[in-house]
Amino acid sequence: MPITTEHWTLCRIPVGIPQPADFEVEVVDLPDLSEGEIVVANRFISVDAGVRDRLSRDSYARRAEPGEVIDGFAVGEVLASLNDQFQAGDLVSSANGWRRHYVSTGRGVMRMDPAVFSPPISESAAIGVLGVSGLTAYFGLRDVAILQPGETVLVSSAAGTVGATAGQIARIMGCRVVGIAGGPVRCQYVVEQLGFDICLDRHAHENLAGAVADSCLDGIDVYFDNVGGEVLDAALLSMKQGGRIAVAGQVSEYNREEPRGARHLREVVERRLRLEGFVVWDFLSGFRDAMTEVGGWIRDGRLTYYEHVVDGFEHAPELFCSLFSSSALGRSLIRL
Amino acid sequence: MPITTEHWTLCRIPVGIPQPADFEVEVVDLPDLSEGEIVVANRFISVDAGVRDRLSRDSYARRAEPGEVIDGFAVGEVLASLNDQFQAGDLVSSANGWRRHYVSTGRGVMRMDPAVFSPPISESAAIGVLGVSGLTAYFGLRDVAILQPGETVLVSSAAGTVGATAGQIARIMGCRVVGIAGGPVRCQYVVEQLGFDICLDRHAHENLAGAVADSCLDGIDVYFDNVGGEVLDAALLSMKQGGRIAVAGQVSEYNREEPRGARHLREVVERRLRLEGFVVWDFLSGFRDAMTEVGGWIRDGRLTYYEHVVDGFEHAPELFCSLFSSSALGRSLIRL
Repeated sequence: MPITTEHWTLCRIPVGIPQPADFEVEVVDLPDLSEGEIVVANRFISVDAGVRDRLSRDSYARRAEPGEVIDGFAVGEVLASLNDQFQAGDLVSSANGWRRHYVSTGRGVMRMDPAVFSPPISESAAIGVLGVSGLTAYFGLRDVAILQPGETVLVSSAAGTVGATAGQIARIMGCRVVGIAGGPVRCQYVVEQLGFDICLDRHAHENLAGAVADSCLDGIDVYFDNVGGEVLDAALLSMKQGGRIAVAGQVSEYNREEPRGARHLREVVERRLRLEGFVVWDFLSGFRDAMTEVGGWIRDGRLTYYEHVVDGFEHAPELFCSLFSSSALGRSLIRL
Repeated sequence: MPITTEHWTLCRIPVGIPQPADFEVEVVDLPDLSEGEIVVANRFISVDAGVRDRLSRDSYARRAEPGEVIDGFAVGEVLASLNDQFQAGDLVSSANGWRRHYVSTGRGVMRMDPAVFSPPISESAAIGVLGVSGLTAYFGLRDVAILQPGETVLVSSAAGTVGATAGQIARIMGCRVVGIAGGPVRCQYVVEQLGFDICLDRHAHENLAGAVADSCLDGIDVYFDNVGGEVLDAALLSMKQGGRIAVAGQVSEYNREEPRGARHLREVVERRLRLEGFVVWDFLSGFRDAMTEVGGWIRDGRLTYYEHVVDGFEHAPELFCSLFSSSALGRSLIRL
């Protein structure tokens, strides 16, 4: 008895800020299971600003084509399995996109350890603080920036899951943490709920570089860069000699038709800086240990996370498009 | 009997391309020697495009002030010594600027090893291929970019001493080397005299990024960056996954009133690039060994260098200003 299901596809390549009309839902019948396959019903899917980049250009992942299912992470339950590695009822995480159900050989599907994903840790943390977002923060600070206790760390997009996790990990490591976020609500959340030492509202400072300099009088040892552009420029002008910039994303570039980049690259020579780009998949072999360590910090009450959950598969495109203008806090998720 | 001597100072902070009238000569009497001091008569001084940056802004070195002696490297002979480390007749190199003579405690003054500086190696190589320029190339490739045999290397300012030395060292290491230089004379020199595999004339390619891509079909492993700006952008678009960019200078920025920087920084994430700025002084403890190794390559005929020597201390400002427009090859030096 085949399952009839839905997925969201791209019907039009977005120009500038994406619109809900750039997406359309497709109704499909899943194939019957073959030997080695599983069928999964998703419970949560993620909407990720970083996906914007793939919608209109080639990036480290191949460019999305009209008709292709939109990228996203998902937490789901195995409904039936013809694969030894999975049983019906298992919770699994995947990167199979905005689908209600999917059939898979199990490749790229990760069984979630019930010892990790039990209260107070939500199932959906597998695609947030204990998924790619949180692990990007973890490996970026630890393995790319080689963060040391007592250093000064600047974190952009501090209210997003990556930035929020990065700043809290830096605090746990005994660092001074300065955040940058958009708007007073986010800044208040970053300081009061996440424990950053300070958070600069990038909308409130015409001279962001000056505000960063005033907040980091002895200079920045590590900048965790999600956004690039003007924020990266502000950071460059306050880096310490020998400072490190872990580059996890350049979100401010993704809606531009012409790239802006950064202006103050002469600082790279003058301050002997290291900028290093990375994607979390480079650290795949360390995922389980990292999830255990970050999960332990959550259980100990040293690290918190926030999820913005919207009910209804039909709302995925609206939620995605709102990422570029809204002030929602934390990880944005659709609950199915 | 005091020595009356001359030095060149800054009389006006340059705007845009420097003019000879930004400089003036001062006549001074040297003090008598105190215990521990030496007096040196310079034979060669260098004029360096990189100094431009210090003339109008703060950089890794403090900004030059009007009245200050212009930075430059020098090779000279010790005339008299009250310092155990030096004898009259010793050849020494220094970074004491555009002076005919100077008195020094010996700090920052390096005795030149006669075993290294003997034919076919010129005395003036101590402030060129075997000085800061050549060593910048050596340490940038070896210790910053961690160049491996067989890789593809892109070198900007390929006809300058730093670029010329970098490309030749990369060839000695068994790499494929693509240069970028300005004008057909320089490009011909880079390929025919220096042995680069190819050299792109940046004036002849409206689409430099396309020309670089066509010359590096399998991508660039290492870009040795002297210039920043548009050339850096062209390189970013052709880097291999995991490529390294050793940033020794951003010369294209030094005459700009507003910085340009690089536009294509999203490639840093997507291609997992590492950009690292450095100055050669970070590797001071390795200087003697490096000079011996590079000197050996010169004696073996595997590495060549070219000096553009102008006679007459009075011509230093003109020669400096011409760096930003001329097509002189190799290291620009004044012989006193």
